[in-house]
Amino acid sequence: MRIIFITGNPHKLREAKEILHSHDVEPRELDLPEIQSLDPKEIVAEKLKAARKKVKAKDAAILVEDVSFWIGSTGLPGPLIKWFIKTVGRSGLVAFARVFGATRARAECNIGVLLPGKRKPHFFTGIVEGRIVGPRGESGFGFDPIFIPDGNTKTYAEMGAEQKNAVSHRRRALAQLEKQLRTNVV
Amino acid sequence: MRIIFITGNPHKLREAKEILHSHDVEPRELDLPEIQSLDPKEIVAEKLKAARKKVKAKDAAILVEDVSFWIGSTGLPGPLIKWFIKTVGRSGLVAFARVFGATRARAECNIGVLLPGKRKPHFFTGIVEGRIVGPRGESGFGFDPIFIPDGNTKTYAEMGAEQKNAVSHRRRALAQLEKQLRTNVV
Repeated sequence: MRIIFITGNPHKLREAKEILHSHDVEPRELDLPEIQSLDPKEIVAEKLKAARKKVKAKDAAILVEDVSFWIGSTGLPGPLIKWFIKTVGRSGLVAFARVFGATRARAECNIGVLLPGKRKPHFFTGIVEGRIVGPRGESGFGFDPIFIPDGNTKTYAEMGAEQKNAVSHRRRALAQLEKQLRTNVV
Repeated sequence: MRIIFITGNPHKLREAKEILHSHDVEPRELDLPEIQSLDPKEIVAEKLKAARKKVKAKDAAILVEDVSFWIGSTGLPGPLIKWFIKTVGRSGLVAFARVFGATRARAECNIGVLLPGKRKPHFFTGIVEGRIVGPRGESGFGFDPIFIPDGNTKTYAEMGAEQKNAVSHRRRALAQLEKQLRTNVV
């Protein structure tokens, strides 16, 4: 199947191509509005609606994703993570966790897919539980330097792309989509 | 002029009616999507666009507003204040301020107005500087119990509606709009 992945990020595209290897994944860079919400599925659903209006191809599935990062039981920042990164940064996130007594975090990728000719979207969620540490590692990307997935000793940032992609929240969500497409349940 | 104020809040409506007393202010309760942004004007502009699609009256101005609350120099939470209130709450906001060494805060109301038959919106910003304290006062509304405007000794919540409305960020924004309408600059 032809799948149009709404992203401008070459790393995300490569990961999707790799996991959805029996499909024809192509990128489309669109600036989709993201609504304010702490419900990632609601955000993804709205992004899909906006994407459907802009993507003219009728023979292709449309794929969007959104990342959440939940600190302890604070209920924040979730899908608002990008605004924390842009303002208080990683060290600010670590301080935020500390003041609320949180040592745990959850990385979550939500994918929304609209199949050709269908109006009802499908959602897939990939979750990785882990813990928060002071910034470690060279990656400049998001919360990678402060997050150690359970069962590992390195932060996402210390792992390098290949090792990270093998365990990441995004892989888990994409793998679910791949399985559903393969078994024709979707 | 007939002004349709997009709000479901009777207190906000009363305040607007009072300040814009020479106009015919009527409420309209619409659930407008709010985009993720730390730029309040961008959020207000998008709300106005969405409101314009839903409000059929051609002879009325459309008024929307959005509130931001900025803690120290963190750059947060700004227009994302409602998500902080819903999750970590007021005591969480106070803890957030403390961990970043912030004692000051800024309450900001942004108003967007679309005049009848016009496509270009007008914006008005009302700002009140002040400081953050532990929750004080009975008001259940937003950040009112933790914010003392400069020149006062009481939090917004301790003031009561009348006293608060006399000094509030919303009044300042509405007063600017009123002046502009009165002097025909808008």
